[in-house]
Formats: sequence, C-alpha cells, structure tokens
Amino acid sequence: MTSITLMSERGVLSFLTAQLESALPGATFRHWSEPGAADAEIAVCWAPPKGALASMPNLRLIHSIGAGVDNILSDPALPDLPVCRVVDPKLAAAMAEFILWGTLYFHRRFDEVTANARAGHWHRLEQMAAGDKRVGILGLGAMGERAARLLSQVGYQVSGWSRSPRQVDGVTVHAGEATLDGFLDQADILVCLLPLTPATSRLLNAERLARLPKGAALILVSRGEHLVVDDLVGLIRSGHLRGAILDVFDHEPLPPDHPLWREPGVLVTPHMAGLAKPRVIAEQIAENIRRLKAGEPLLNRADPARGY
Amino acid sequence: MTSITLMSERGVLSFLTAQLESALPGATFRHWSEPGAADAEIAVCWAPPKGALASMPNLRLIHSIGAGVDNILSDPALPDLPVCRVVDPKLAAAMAEFILWGTLYFHRRFDEVTANARAGHWHRLEQMAAGDKRVGILGLGAMGERAARLLSQVGYQVSGWSRSPRQVDGVTVHAGEATLDGFLDQADILVCLLPLTPATSRLLNAERLARLPKGAALILVSRGEHLVVDDLVGLIRSGHLRGAILDVFDHEPLPPDHPLWREPGVLVTPHMAGLAKPRVIAEQIAENIRRLKAGEPLLNRADPARGY
Repeated sequence: MTSITLMSERGVLSFLTAQLESALPGATFRHWSEPGAADAEIAVCWAPPKGALASMPNLRLIHSIGAGVDNILSDPALPDLPVCRVVDPKLAAAMAEFILWGTLYFHRRFDEVTANARAGHWHRLEQMAAGDKRVGILGLGAMGERAARLLSQVGYQVSGWSRSPRQVDGVTVHAGEATLDGFLDQADILVCLLPLTPATSRLLNAERLARLPKGAALILVSRGEHLVVDDLVGLIRSGHLRGAILDVFDHEPLPPDHPLWREPGVLVTPHMAGLAKPRVIAEQIAENIRRLKAGEPLLNRADPARGY
Repeated sequence: MTSITLMSERGVLSFLTAQLESALPGATFRHWSEPGAADAEIAVCWAPPKGALASMPNLRLIHSIGAGVDNILSDPALPDLPVCRVVDPKLAAAMAEFILWGTLYFHRRFDEVTANARAGHWHRLEQMAAGDKRVGILGLGAMGERAARLLSQVGYQVSGWSRSPRQVDGVTVHAGEATLDGFLDQADILVCLLPLTPATSRLLNAERLARLPKGAALILVSRGEHLVVDDLVGLIRSGHLRGAILDVFDHEPLPPDHPLWREPGVLVTPHMAGLAKPRVIAEQIAENIRRLKAGEPLLNRADPARGY
C-alpha cells in the first residue's frame, strides 16, 4: 500500500484529491497537517513548508503538481531524492494560445482599440504585418518551444533565448548568458517562460527591460519572481515600454486593492495561461509511483543542480 | 493619357492620391465634384453616388479600392462595364489575424478576464481546449479560406459555409442554402466574411442567430448590412449568445454616442480587421488600367450577376 502526503497549504490541493484517489486505488492520502503524514513514501507538493520534506524518514519521491519545481528546490533542507514535475502537452498548447492572444493584442494594438471602444472613440490605427514584428521567447523548454513554433506559423519573426543551444524550426535561437543582451535588443514583444532558479530570479529588472526596443511589450507567464514589477511600471510610465500582460505574481491571488490592476498599460490575468487538468496531473503522478515501485526510470525528473 | 475620376465623398480617397499618382505617371486625376470629371475613362470608387457612373460617356473601367464591390453593384443604373476589386494577400492575412484574436478572445474568455481585471477580481475560469471549440466561417472566399486554414492550424474545429461546394484542408465545408441551418447549429464562434449581396443582406437576423448553440459568439468583419443589430443585442441580453465583436456597421464611423459602444458583451472595433495598403491598392488599379489598354484580361473582376 502506498502512503502519500499532500503537502501544501490546506485547500490548495483539494481540487486534486478525487482524481488522485481514482488514479491510485488503495493508496492512503493524508494532508501534511494530519497525524502520520510524515511517515508517507510519496510527497505530492505545491510550495511545501521548508524543512518538512527532510523530516520524512520513509520518503522516496517528491512530486510537484505543476510544471515548475522552484517552490520545492528552494527548500535549503531538500533531501537527496528524486523530484518530478508534471508535463502536460495540453497545458503547453493552452500556454501557447495565451501567448498568441497576447502577441496579437500588442501587435494589432488591441490595448488601444479596447480603450478607444470604452471611450466611444472610432479611430483606425496603422497596421503592421506579423512578419515585421519580432517576438522573443525567454526560455525554450517544452512550453517555450511550442509557443515559438505557433507564433512562427502565424507569421511572426520569432527568436528564442535558452541556457544551452538548441534548434527550433523557424526560430532564431540565442544560447547562453552572453547572448542575452543582443536577444533583448531585438524583441518587440518579450515573452518570459523561464524556469525560476536563483539565476533567473528578478532577471527582468530595469537594466534588462530598458534594452528592449522603444514601444516593446512584455508577456509574463512564468513566475512573478522573474520580474521587478516597479522597474516594469517605471518603464511603462516613462513611455519606453508599451505595456505588459502579467499572468503571475509574487503573491497570488493578487488582492483586489493591488495597484497593478489599475496601472495603465498593464493587463492582469489570474495565473490562467496554462492550467493542467487534474486528471492529467493525477495520472502522471500515479505513473511515476508505479515506475518507482517497479524500479523503472521516472518521467520528467528535475535536476536540482540545474534548478529545473 | 489616362483620365481618372475619384468617386467617393471628398476626403475618403485622399489617402490614396499620392500612391495613384506615383503608380500612374502622366494620368490626370479629378475628384467627382470637379469640372470635367465625368469625361474620365476610369472611375476609382468607394460608394459612388447612384447614377453617376451612368453619366460618364467615356467610361471603360470601374475599380473598387477595396475587396468589396457591393457599394458599386448596388447602383441601379450601373453601366455594363467591367467592375474590378482589390485582392490583397496581406489584407487577407491581417483579416485572419483579427479573426484569430477574436476567436481566442471568446474561447479563452478574455471578455470576462478583462472585465474581472477592471474590477480587481482574481478569478480563474475553466479552460477548454481549442479542439473542443467549433468555429464556423460564413463565406469561403480568399479571406474566409485563409482564416479557416489558420484557425485549423491553431487547433480549432473549423467548418465553413459557402454558396458553392469547395475543398479546404482541415475544414468541413457546408455548401448551399439548404445546409445553412445545420452549419449554424454547430458554430460556437461564428465568423461572417460573406460578400454583401441582396441574398446575404441582413442574413444574421434573430431566427438565424438563435440557431447558434447557447453561449455562442459572433465576429462580424464583412459588412454592417449582414446583421440585424437589434436582433443580436436581444439574443445577448437574453443570455442565448455570449457576445460579439463588431468591426463593421451600417454607418461608419460609428458616432461616439452610439449605444453599441457601451452594450455589454459587444466589442466595437473601427473597421480595422484588414486594411489594404495604399501602395497595393494603387498598384493593382494601375495594373488593371495597363491590361485594359493592352486588351489583356483584367484581374479580380467582379460578376454583377453573382453580386461579388
């Protein structure tokens, strides 16, 4: 019998419980706050309390419920155990759609169009071809690559930046730290899909955002911690940047009185770019538990040294 | 020497004058209101005054500046002369982008997302895969076909309706009047790209819009006259339809006090879905004038019997 602890603030994982029970018949589930939870072999996590994983003597596998593992790897007392994440192709498709919508929003100036509509103001804006817009994708993992391909199919000039060299059809790839400035210099629309690691935290600060061409826009769909929000707002207010679509924040949900909701040029969306289906999450976790017990290689294993 | 009259309300064609002069060196240009304009061989038109074309003894060619010729063919005294239109592949691309943006807007519920953002309300909505959304394109001319292909590439279930049978990869085609009801029955997002003819005028009335599935949305990018606006508004208010993006209207520009700007569920855009470049318009008109003089077949000739 497999014992599993659900490690997050209570309530966060409740959407998943029924699916996990159905994918793992016979397993026992305990929330971290319940007695006996520390005896579990498997930890299913979203932002587990720091130090908690190290206190579990029988633990064999740490599984994220999402694509990101930053909220697990940031535990300074992380035990030396496999950490896995969920890779859902439908989530990557949904993410790419969101990015495509945001790219069209800035390219076709729907920020101005919708503001004009609210004011009852008929005004035709000049039109630019997709082929004259340069979209830069920061991060070319499964999600970045999918978004890059889709944008390229629609007709945009697409470039990508990744830590290590890779090849994506129709996409100009900039690889390595040294190429970052040159990549930013030419991104009319910058999309951030990086994993969150100590090296990428607050990467999007005033200095780097100022490198973007005048009138550029940002689409942030990775983690709030990639961005220095005040630096972004300053560059929008000064007129250097056109605007931003922000889907992720340091603290979510963003409270109703947060000034970002009403900041001109900023569109806040509720961490919705890509939502994995509970069924898919549960199935991937169940499959990795089966593999663990059978001694087979685990799927979608994170590399703590690399940070994702 | 070629004499050309520019036939529209004064000012409408002024954006085109410099490009026409450069594409047709040596030609003379007169606005319809100027003396001698009725002697011209060529009429370059946008909504010419009814009866005016019939009063031109030397007229040999009537050229629209746009893809539509409805504003010319509706002249009851139209002389029996070639009527040509402008077919700009970049315009078709721009139109397809606009339709893609609008489709994503309804599919990913950005109408609700942006309304929630204005209210400072963080609320994650359920997500649906593109493959579960059925987009129906009314009209499969050059523009409809391009939009249909793009939406299909992005992953939508795409169907199209046209007067006569045709084949478009990845698109289910419904052909002929008798198939219209069945086509409407299954369109979660209906895109209207029909040419305006007596047969398509006010096609989108209460009866036909009510056939759309509950929660369906409309994207109107053809002509305002395709729609009975009050019928649409009634079906949105009653909750049968989710909303509409309206890019074209009976009278444009829509005045600032028009109630549509503020109608919940309706997004008004300023006839912007596809704008032909003045240079392309001028070059196509110049090429047809060259062909006329050389006795070669004209490009993009409309068929008055068919109505487009």
